Amino acid sequence: MNQDIYLIGTGQTPFGEHWDKSLKNLMDEAVTAAIDDAPINALDIDFIVVSNMLGERTNDQAHLGAMASSLLPHRPPALRTEAACASGSVAIHTALSLLESGRAETILVVGVEKMTDVSPDEISAALMGAADSEKDIPSGLTFPGIFGLIANRYMHEYGLTREQLNLVSACHHANGVSNPNAQFRSAIPAEKISQSPSVADPLCLLDCSPISDGAAAVILSNKHESHIRIAASQISTDTLSITDRPTLTSFPATKDATDRALEEAEITREDIAHLETHDCFSIAAVINLEDLGFAQPGTGIRLYEEGNRDSQIAAPTVNASGGLKACGHPVGATGIKQIVDLTKQLTSSNKRYALAHNFGGAGATCCVHILENTNV
Amino acid sequence: MNQDIYLIGTGQTPFGEHWDKSLKNLMDEAVTAAIDDAPINALDIDFIVVSNMLGERTNDQAHLGAMASSLLPHRPPALRTEAACASGSVAIHTALSLLESGRAETILVVGVEKMTDVSPDEISAALMGAADSEKDIPSGLTFPGIFGLIANRYMHEYGLTREQLNLVSACHHANGVSNPNAQFRSAIPAEKISQSPSVADPLCLLDCSPISDGAAAVILSNKHESHIRIAASQISTDTLSITDRPTLTSFPATKDATDRALEEAEITREDIAHLETHDCFSIAAVINLEDLGFAQPGTGIRLYEEGNRDSQIAAPTVNASGGLKACGHPVGATGIKQIVDLTKQLTSSNKRYALAHNFGGAGATCCVHILENTNV
Repeated sequence: MNQDIYLIGTGQTPFGEHWDKSLKNLMDEAVTAAIDDAPINALDIDFIVVSNMLGERTNDQAHLGAMASSLLPHRPPALRTEAACASGSVAIHTALSLLESGRAETILVVGVEKMTDVSPDEISAALMGAADSEKDIPSGLTFPGIFGLIANRYMHEYGLTREQLNLVSACHHANGVSNPNAQFRSAIPAEKISQSPSVADPLCLLDCSPISDGAAAVILSNKHESHIRIAASQISTDTLSITDRPTLTSFPATKDATDRALEEAEITREDIAHLETHDCFSIAAVINLEDLGFAQPGTGIRLYEEGNRDSQIAAPTVNASGGLKACGHPVGATGIKQIVDLTKQLTSSNKRYALAHNFGGAGATCCVHILENTNV
Repeated sequence: MNQDIYLIGTGQTPFGEHWDKSLKNLMDEAVTAAIDDAPINALDIDFIVVSNMLGERTNDQAHLGAMASSLLPHRPPALRTEAACASGSVAIHTALSLLESGRAETILVVGVEKMTDVSPDEISAALMGAADSEKDIPSGLTFPGIFGLIANRYMHEYGLTREQLNLVSACHHANGVSNPNAQFRSAIPAEKISQSPSVADPLCLLDCSPISDGAAAVILSNKHESHIRIAASQISTDTLSITDRPTLTSFPATKDATDRALEEAEITREDIAHLETHDCFSIAAVINLEDLGFAQPGTGIRLYEEGNRDSQIAAPTVNASGGLKACGHPVGATGIKQIVDLTKQLTSSNKRYALAHNFGGAGATCCVHILENTNV
């Protein structure tokens, strides 16, 4: 970061099924909460970045920048960013660049998605827009299918068992019980995960993050201060299609973005107290912990085996919010909601650093943000 | 601009019907041309911003940042921006901010759209995503309908005749004859415009920009220099729905963006030698010339009445490329293609300043860029 940028307000809707609310309603609710949380009023916002993936297809609504702008009395300039499920993080990256450029002082970033209004077939097809339409769609793959292949390969390479994999979703669901904004707030015993219906073998229903509606917003400023500073923001990109990758059991873009973010923040992994990682599927969380450097290849599951703490590497709390699995995954909102939750975690624990890891597709766009609690 | 940023390479595909090419093919063609045009090689590009509106809906393809990144051997970080038909301009604005922030030195901006693969009904419905899905779509409006209402109201207020309006498309088609990348390269006599089939009275087929496929790319750098400098980049936002506007015969966001851009470039309107303005419909061009300040309200048509030159205000050349009408309007590419064409015009004329005006929806997002020829 070439200047001090603070996170001065956060807000979100509960994630879940919001059949009675439009994209505009959901944005309005999250934006109002973020402004109420910040030491500013709406007129201080001089730019808006909106994150959304599917609105044009599933809600007949593109041009969400102008729609969000219309929520404020002075209609500041606005645009929308998209990078599939990493849309929220690239929105934050864009906002930080606008602040660092001197073009704005206080930016509202709002992510929104409304996925439950269309059929499961249609939302599955729409989500495949995150993959390569020329290489992955013709094969009949869906994202559960892609991550089913990844899970199979991982089990083959490293001997991960189905019983071990159960621990991931069980942990995230346990964490989500105390999150009032989580879509699912029931603890689910580990053995129930693999007893849920098969979706894409070996993955079962409870290995998959759900289809969700929701919005999340943050306000970033280099004019107004708070105790949460943005210490790093990095994006890394990989091939869009998994067919072009040398391996299915690692997402190298996560490694690259993490290394660059730690360098930007001038800290090491051991400094990270809280982590929110992109557990779109249980197997992704295992691989992510390895790519993030909190576990060696093949050993990511160990961080779940004894209450998250049985690692030779100092490891942060993982998805204490409940993650995508329990919180829900309205794709445009997820990357922003991770920042909302990490802000709460840092404030509550009074620890210094937290890391958000959000990816799009099968790791084709990987983003890492590091937050610093300046009270520590 | 808080630093000198140069436009070091441009490229585009011809605009038209490209049934044999995918979004990826079109991007590749424009990107290759832009890199070949620039004094760099592909590895010098350290970020990519992609502009696209409809890919998720009409081509089953979102996540175009990662797709564009995969076209280069080193896969730089990438993201996509969208603001309906102004997507190209907000992509350039985003790229400039990333450069000004210090996060990148040389950025590729590529806009792409592929609209001719779906039915006219579907593309009309998809384009209505640029309007307000809660207010405009339920009324049965399409964009020709919205601009038909605007044309009716303008004729009522200012007495513009159907015969006068014919001059706009006739001029732009005449200009397009010499543009090898234009979708239509035939001169069309003025009287033929209103003899074409009625689309949304008083607008006829030849008042409307066409449905097009195509891509355009520019390379921006603060490390490498060229004779074209970016002198200003401004975005302004209005209500998404025309039902929330005090008038139909002016787009105030154009005025705001223009005033701020002229201030940023530290020049006046009289300094502008070449203008590319957003003539999605003939009536829009008339209104734009007034909002841009090159004509008084109600008199925009005068700039077309005697070879573009019969104005009391010093006026630039208008859509010498052929504009959206003759060149085609692949929406995600249009804002970038305007910059490509203005670069050619400044280089050819050896004049100093050119202005690009690009809007989304019915003027809900208005963008103005000013280019400076530093050889002058």
